[in-house]
Amino acid sequence: MKALRVAVLGCGVVGSQVVRLIQDQAVELAARVGTPLELAGVAVRRPQRHPEVSPEMITTDAVELVSRPDVDVVVEVIGGIEPARSLILAAFKGGKSVVTANKALLAEDGSTLHAAAREAAVDLYYEASVAGAIPLLRPLRESLAGDRLHRVIGIVNGTTNYILSRMDETGAGFSEALDEASALGYAEADPSADVDGFDAASKAAILAGLAFHTRVTASDVYREGIANVTAADVASAKAMGCTVKLLVICERTSTVDGDAVAVRVHPAMIPRTHPLAAVNDAFNAVFVEADAAGELMFYGRGAGGAPTASAVLGDLVAVARNRLAGTLGPGESAYAELPIQPMGETRTSYHVSMDVADRTGVLAAVATAFAVHGVSISTVRQEGRSEDATLVIVTHVAPDRALSSTVEDLRRLDFVRAVTSVMRVEGER
Amino acid sequence: MKALRVAVLGCGVVGSQVVRLIQDQAVELAARVGTPLELAGVAVRRPQRHPEVSPEMITTDAVELVSRPDVDVVVEVIGGIEPARSLILAAFKGGKSVVTANKALLAEDGSTLHAAAREAAVDLYYEASVAGAIPLLRPLRESLAGDRLHRVIGIVNGTTNYILSRMDETGAGFSEALDEASALGYAEADPSADVDGFDAASKAAILAGLAFHTRVTASDVYREGIANVTAADVASAKAMGCTVKLLVICERTSTVDGDAVAVRVHPAMIPRTHPLAAVNDAFNAVFVEADAAGELMFYGRGAGGAPTASAVLGDLVAVARNRLAGTLGPGESAYAELPIQPMGETRTSYHVSMDVADRTGVLAAVATAFAVHGVSISTVRQEGRSEDATLVIVTHVAPDRALSSTVEDLRRLDFVRAVTSVMRVEGER
Repeated sequence: MKALRVAVLGCGVVGSQVVRLIQDQAVELAARVGTPLELAGVAVRRPQRHPEVSPEMITTDAVELVSRPDVDVVVEVIGGIEPARSLILAAFKGGKSVVTANKALLAEDGSTLHAAAREAAVDLYYEASVAGAIPLLRPLRESLAGDRLHRVIGIVNGTTNYILSRMDETGAGFSEALDEASALGYAEADPSADVDGFDAASKAAILAGLAFHTRVTASDVYREGIANVTAADVASAKAMGCTVKLLVICERTSTVDGDAVAVRVHPAMIPRTHPLAAVNDAFNAVFVEADAAGELMFYGRGAGGAPTASAVLGDLVAVARNRLAGTLGPGESAYAELPIQPMGETRTSYHVSMDVADRTGVLAAVATAFAVHGVSISTVRQEGRSEDATLVIVTHVAPDRALSSTVEDLRRLDFVRAVTSVMRVEGER
Repeated sequence: MKALRVAVLGCGVVGSQVVRLIQDQAVELAARVGTPLELAGVAVRRPQRHPEVSPEMITTDAVELVSRPDVDVVVEVIGGIEPARSLILAAFKGGKSVVTANKALLAEDGSTLHAAAREAAVDLYYEASVAGAIPLLRPLRESLAGDRLHRVIGIVNGTTNYILSRMDETGAGFSEALDEASALGYAEADPSADVDGFDAASKAAILAGLAFHTRVTASDVYREGIANVTAADVASAKAMGCTVKLLVICERTSTVDGDAVAVRVHPAMIPRTHPLAAVNDAFNAVFVEADAAGELMFYGRGAGGAPTASAVLGDLVAVARNRLAGTLGPGESAYAELPIQPMGETRTSYHVSMDVADRTGVLAAVATAFAVHGVSISTVRQEGRSEDATLVIVTHVAPDRALSSTVEDLRRLDFVRAVTSVMRVEGER
């Protein structure tokens, strides 16, 4: 039988593992696909840096590689918006299916890619773009296709999870933990994509889109990174039996005008008894709540060359099988077209710690600040007395706007010396 | 567009939820499939028992229903070998695709079903047959298709997990915990399929077959149930920081003659720090260890009408989409044809507690009994003194046959008063 030929764009941490697996597992891949998968070429920027790839496979001309008539499938693991987008669109134009791990591109312009794939009658698969090795997108696209999802919540960024794990373990501040992560190679030279939540926001957009059959882009995602998480926040979380995690939360919400989709990425305190609290370092985990299925959890390595390459290879087998059968996998599913709910209207709950003067009437005044915004208080704890008193308040859920306005008002109260920690609380059951 | 028509065989706990979801989610299902899914009929034994289904949908003639020319897809949720097998084969013969939750049938005669589906060029999907709502088979069949799996280990039977959870919590014996499970409806009138491990063994066969691309039937699975697990075993597990779980363990092992597959179901002690230790009651969880992907975990509701129906509906959408596209999903993958390793050769480790006379030389004699079988001891703990001494030994891994022979020898030593607990230990890292 005629072999299917695969072009790989990019040969970094993931690409080099993809190339290795295509060669090492050739016999098994051929058996699973029904025909051999052959490497057609690997596009790189600096050929001399890839001694592990046979020189005749290497090219610096990615545009030429994706247009070659003997290429059937293109694996894009360059990342970023350009030239990845142009190369993928060129591949579609030439009738090639594409497997990509590019979350940023999918979250910014997934609809363009999906439309181009549909027009060219080829496949676009992207399991590796979210949560590395964890089979998560295929279950969302296919296994749960007969169910109605309410919520997807998880930890999908290894760098920030490592930093927060270290802050929790050692009491270190953010900068110190970031320096440690950088020294160990867990953080990039420019850590902003991870630390400021951009990476997680891209993944949130992809997850929400699949979960709720709605187009969601990265700009629809409310995003707060972890750069402002302090040692005091982490200590405050500890004191109430919680830990701080950077969470991705995608919800279907009910509004007076019908259902909407709320998608957000922010640090949050979760109880230590919550399964996500035990997800440390580079591991990822995602909870899915569905009408009929109930609660599901997926856990595994969210990053790294080999785990991500495993997800790419799974897609490669699926795409190759589809080509062999002359068929296509599921395309974009955006029929629900639900509106995006603004963060201000999304219901959350807050933890607020503040240093207050220990005077009669302080609690009453603080309670009033919450009440005027319609925010109901769940627990109040006062620590210390006189000049050192600390008041810790956890609210019930309320619109996020009401909660943030309350905090603004608290900062203005003259017997509130300082609001020392404000953070959302999730995962209470 | 022409609707696809679905016949449902069986209307019990799962079937009634499938019927409900097909009707309640009609709009969403139509959007996801690309054409409406219509209920064509529901085959039941006692029509008067199903007031929730419109009477014109009900039939007692399942044979007639699966042969109707207007039926496109058959959902089989009767369970058991016959008449389920004949009905499924009849459906294939009539060109209908089948979605089933029938683990017993798949584990006994999956190859016949797969061959018949292939011959008729129709689909056979069965996500619901293992671990209810948890999307597990599709990841194994598809997402991990480009990876090499080493091990699948998990908890896939809710009844036994409930019983063992209760024994662990309350110190109750097996019969007492079983009675409680029966009273709460967690155990069937005849609990043997669950308690004796038959249900788990069927699921193990299906998982091992998919994981290792080899035909595995229920009779290939080494099986021990939980009826002989005593309160003393559970107490002994507790004393060493473990809990007892009924585990399914599927492994690719290396032998001198090449790779083999070892598949077993038995109670085992696992450390309380192991993620499976926290899986309680009716929840299921499965770990998958793969070459490139590393360790993955899937967690969710393993039983119950709605969760299982969610898995059936996911398959139904996939099968319907395939039909619409004129294509087929992945069929049986058994190209590896690995041999099944006998349990005696499978490497396990044992926990053994025994009451011994506290005499000089006892430990030496016991240690010798292990040594003559080539079994190396990992830890020894002696509790009490003189007439009440208890010796607790945990071994390193050794062939299971050597371990069981050692225990036989121990029982014959005259200063060993009683071997009070013997159980395999898993999940040490």
